[in-house]
Amino acid sequence: MKRIVLLRHGESVWNKENRFTGWTDVDLCEEGIAEAQRAGRLLKNEGFAFDRAFVSLLKRAVKTLDVVLDAMDLDWIRVDKSWRLNEKHYGVLQGLDKCATAARYGEEQVQKWRRSYDVAPDVLSPDDARNPRFDVRYRDVPDAELPRTESLRDTVARTLPYWRCVIIPALADCDSMLVVAHGNSLRGIVKCLKGISDTDISSLNIPTATPWVFEFDDGLNYVGDRLLGNSDDIAQRMHAAASLGGGL
Amino acid sequence: MKRIVLLRHGESVWNKENRFTGWTDVDLCEEGIAEAQRAGRLLKNEGFAFDRAFVSLLKRAVKTLDVVLDAMDLDWIRVDKSWRLNEKHYGVLQGLDKCATAARYGEEQVQKWRRSYDVAPDVLSPDDARNPRFDVRYRDVPDAELPRTESLRDTVARTLPYWRCVIIPALADCDSMLVVAHGNSLRGIVKCLKGISDTDISSLNIPTATPWVFEFDDGLNYVGDRLLGNSDDIAQRMHAAASLGGGL
Repeated sequence: MKRIVLLRHGESVWNKENRFTGWTDVDLCEEGIAEAQRAGRLLKNEGFAFDRAFVSLLKRAVKTLDVVLDAMDLDWIRVDKSWRLNEKHYGVLQGLDKCATAARYGEEQVQKWRRSYDVAPDVLSPDDARNPRFDVRYRDVPDAELPRTESLRDTVARTLPYWRCVIIPALADCDSMLVVAHGNSLRGIVKCLKGISDTDISSLNIPTATPWVFEFDDGLNYVGDRLLGNSDDIAQRMHAAASLGGGL
Repeated sequence: MKRIVLLRHGESVWNKENRFTGWTDVDLCEEGIAEAQRAGRLLKNEGFAFDRAFVSLLKRAVKTLDVVLDAMDLDWIRVDKSWRLNEKHYGVLQGLDKCATAARYGEEQVQKWRRSYDVAPDVLSPDDARNPRFDVRYRDVPDAELPRTESLRDTVARTLPYWRCVIIPALADCDSMLVVAHGNSLRGIVKCLKGISDTDISSLNIPTATPWVFEFDDGLNYVGDRLLGNSDDIAQRMHAAASLGGGL
């Protein structure tokens, strides 16, 4: 049986400050690093040993991966990084305080941004300093593909080609791989694997730093999945993930 | 002008315990992490921004790299890892206390292992648990290439193909790259770049976590180099490197 473990990064500084993050490159907070260490020790104790890993281009995911691999003494494995695993782009909301945003746009509009599959926040203007075009890490991404806002549908659409054309084919030569990413890019992957509907996917809240193990047969077909860890702890993290606004 | 920065990993736990390390996968000590953070801040303050990085398969080098990239907010860049950048393999000496070894084999013999270009420590027997053949990270390295001891000449011979065939060609598409490795693998690179003789190379002591900047013209020819940082600090590190036994 082959395995891919999906892992959402640990808590970030802006999760704590209650601000919309998206593609903003915020750091893990201390608790986020501790979460990643616990995830690494858990994976090691459960006998996992990854051959390769994949991660987004955002610091909170890369540091989560670094900490996990260090805890597993797997610092040496190959790591591939891609913008396609980044969090959903939150357009003009990026950097804003969530309460202030609710006061300004109304609770109903914020819920739409959080829960609708098709509605994207207002787009960043091309000359906005937050436009990823100004960030050197995206220099090789064509203009037509580089978002300045995204609905969950858009996020899923740019994540899945990487999952299907890079990650899954790599599993042919590996027994076990790790993918560290974000609430919404992981939603896209789980939606695809488990055939979750457009309506239901928004209410799937992926807990931070909780290894989600997906098993595949030798034909690379999905055969089952399970969250790793004790169930009380997982329930608590699921609840926390829901209150984080599903990855906002 | 294109640049490659060479960086020796920060101090490890076994540097402190005065034991022969080689390919043993020991961790950084706290001071080693602090050194790496200082190196990253120094590089950032001096305006460096790397496009790619290269590192050995050993934890003390990978963690040094992770900490440096994090301090520079370059967590997202591509990193390639290779066993060819590993430290010199120390054969049967790996794991032994340096003082006990001097008492057992004599100071003269230890100096020969430290300073001779051609003399390797006794070879590990194939069934020794320290034989890298038993370590999954080297599974793709052919038997004929995987060492069970090395002279400095051997280390240089397996490092240079990676330098010449992977790192230097990659510079054609980059402005600036970082290589994090070990006292002896870096000696091989510096020997090649600066044309240092077999006799003189052993006495070149590369200070830990001190960025060494090499500049290249557009034809990828070496044109000059300098150590980064204040000169008192560098002198102190050079002295410490010499007392570490030149990378033993």
